[in-house]
Amino acid sequence: MEIIVLGTSAGTPTRQRNMSGLALRLRGAKQWVLVDCAEGTQHRILRTPLSVMSLRAVFITHLHGDHCYGLPGLLASAAMAGRSDALTVVGPPPLRGMIEAIMVASQLSLPFPLVWLTPSDLAGDSAGDLANAPLMPELAVDATALSHGLPCWAYGFTEAAMARHLDTEKLRADAVPASPLWGDLQKGRDVTLADGRFIKATDYLMPPRRARRIVVAGDNDRPELLATAAHGADVLVHEATYTEDVLQKIGPGPQHTSAMRVARFAEEAGVRNLVLTHFSPRYQDHGALPMALLEDEARAQYNGNLILARDLDHYVLDRSGALAHAEQAPTGARTAPSTSDRQPR
Amino acid sequence: MEIIVLGTSAGTPTRQRNMSGLALRLRGAKQWVLVDCAEGTQHRILRTPLSVMSLRAVFITHLHGDHCYGLPGLLASAAMAGRSDALTVVGPPPLRGMIEAIMVASQLSLPFPLVWLTPSDLAGDSAGDLANAPLMPELAVDATALSHGLPCWAYGFTEAAMARHLDTEKLRADAVPASPLWGDLQKGRDVTLADGRFIKATDYLMPPRRARRIVVAGDNDRPELLATAAHGADVLVHEATYTEDVLQKIGPGPQHTSAMRVARFAEEAGVRNLVLTHFSPRYQDHGALPMALLEDEARAQYNGNLILARDLDHYVLDRSGALAHAEQAPTGARTAPSTSDRQPR
Repeated sequence: MEIIVLGTSAGTPTRQRNMSGLALRLRGAKQWVLVDCAEGTQHRILRTPLSVMSLRAVFITHLHGDHCYGLPGLLASAAMAGRSDALTVVGPPPLRGMIEAIMVASQLSLPFPLVWLTPSDLAGDSAGDLANAPLMPELAVDATALSHGLPCWAYGFTEAAMARHLDTEKLRADAVPASPLWGDLQKGRDVTLADGRFIKATDYLMPPRRARRIVVAGDNDRPELLATAAHGADVLVHEATYTEDVLQKIGPGPQHTSAMRVARFAEEAGVRNLVLTHFSPRYQDHGALPMALLEDEARAQYNGNLILARDLDHYVLDRSGALAHAEQAPTGARTAPSTSDRQPR
Repeated sequence: MEIIVLGTSAGTPTRQRNMSGLALRLRGAKQWVLVDCAEGTQHRILRTPLSVMSLRAVFITHLHGDHCYGLPGLLASAAMAGRSDALTVVGPPPLRGMIEAIMVASQLSLPFPLVWLTPSDLAGDSAGDLANAPLMPELAVDATALSHGLPCWAYGFTEAAMARHLDTEKLRADAVPASPLWGDLQKGRDVTLADGRFIKATDYLMPPRRARRIVVAGDNDRPELLATAAHGADVLVHEATYTEDVLQKIGPGPQHTSAMRVARFAEEAGVRNLVLTHFSPRYQDHGALPMALLEDEARAQYNGNLILARDLDHYVLDRSGALAHAEQAPTGARTAPSTSDRQPR
């Protein structure tokens, strides 16, 4: 599984960071999904190998502008690029009315259907009934309610429908001759052999490998709400808007968390990889409040693999559950991030 | 007067060009006005000396997304920056409802008042009644209806309230003694001298210098609609979405003009400086359709000063009516445009 970071700033853009946006796809796949879509997300996409033509679904965590104001422009650009495939949009209920009001006022008509879902459709027991939603079939998606100024959600993405391998050694040991029937077994179908023996597929299928899981949370002042969702997750992507001292000074009003708090939660939950994002613009690589303050605070709480996300970062989660920076620029990337994008303000 | 170009692409962004946005201010002033506000305009502003705190008014030419989808984010960032001064927003009537729907859904509350006007308020005889609108008092603004897929306008900005100088030579020749009365005359007040003579101010005021005028048009397939507005204008900023051959191939549906047509109009109207913008993304500096195609086509029709706008260009219109690139980076610019912004795709 792969993550491509499109924006990491909270509230407003800086010259180095755009606001929230994160792409997720299976390794090497063209199809991808987008979590949050701040203003300027489509501009970031131009600097990655991603295309709006192969976007399958957009998940909006909540309706604050720095998480969704880029969606109308993304839809307009997909329309101009000639997209015809349906696009699923998952977000809190008022999102649909807002987008439709914008489409009417700006006379934006899309040559592709939008399939609207709400996070509640993905939460709890109702998660199954999504037959008509063109999400990515390779990913099962669930949603967890968070605590923020307005309804806000985390989305969990779990690998689905992984192929199981046949235990050919056992088949041979039991004298089940190699034949097209092996193919049926591999697909999970029980078969009857020419000699009359009934063979149950599950007896000869290797256990599937562990499904990888990535949880991407929206803004949230109570990381512990993710205890269930993060249990067994390989990666948690979570906001760390402030260091603890700044959060204390600002008070609880904005309902954000600190690097300390989310790192402590991830440690307790046993999350192997923690990706922090959504940093207040007051933190800058070389400013009075360097990014290292956030990093040091998190490291003091968390012994797993910690990453402070940067715009256009590209991570690969391997099958063992290790998350690492992609070794080289994503295939098809039109360019590496420009030097100026990485310079201090 | 100064122009700072924030975006020059039509419809969608490219890696070099953002969509429509143009800043206008008096030379050296902090206060400025913005014409159009595509998605990503606030990101462009970060690369100029402009600040959302000193923005006086926003003028939206029409409601296609590539001209207005950046407005909600700009307002949100101004709110987060702590702006308290009223902001005038001028645009076609549905703009207000669209922005208010977005503000409700995203729970955006502004700590400053918005003063809503429509282009009709600035057009024809009603242009005078703007007493409560915090526009820039140094600029008189008018609006002209254009021809596009939905209601679209050009805005004309004319220097206002220029100081008139006293003709001191004539005062001395007529034996009007230097006294505080000269100050009254300079302010346009008639006075009676100690010797009983009645002195009319207008008899002793030098004619004001010619007011400079810049017309910034939205999308428009009939440049001739600007005949009145452009008469005597120093600068016309107008779209040139296509070359004539591409426009012929695409047909009249999108209701854009060609470099040839707008340049021919500018020549006939005697416009001294023509700034072309809003270029289809098919034209690239080093692509199969180079920008030079647009430039050559316009030059063949137009003998004035022709500029093909580039993002982050900065022009100065001097009192003689000559428009030129600013000699150096605008004061306070945080950086020159990065090299990567100028590289071919």
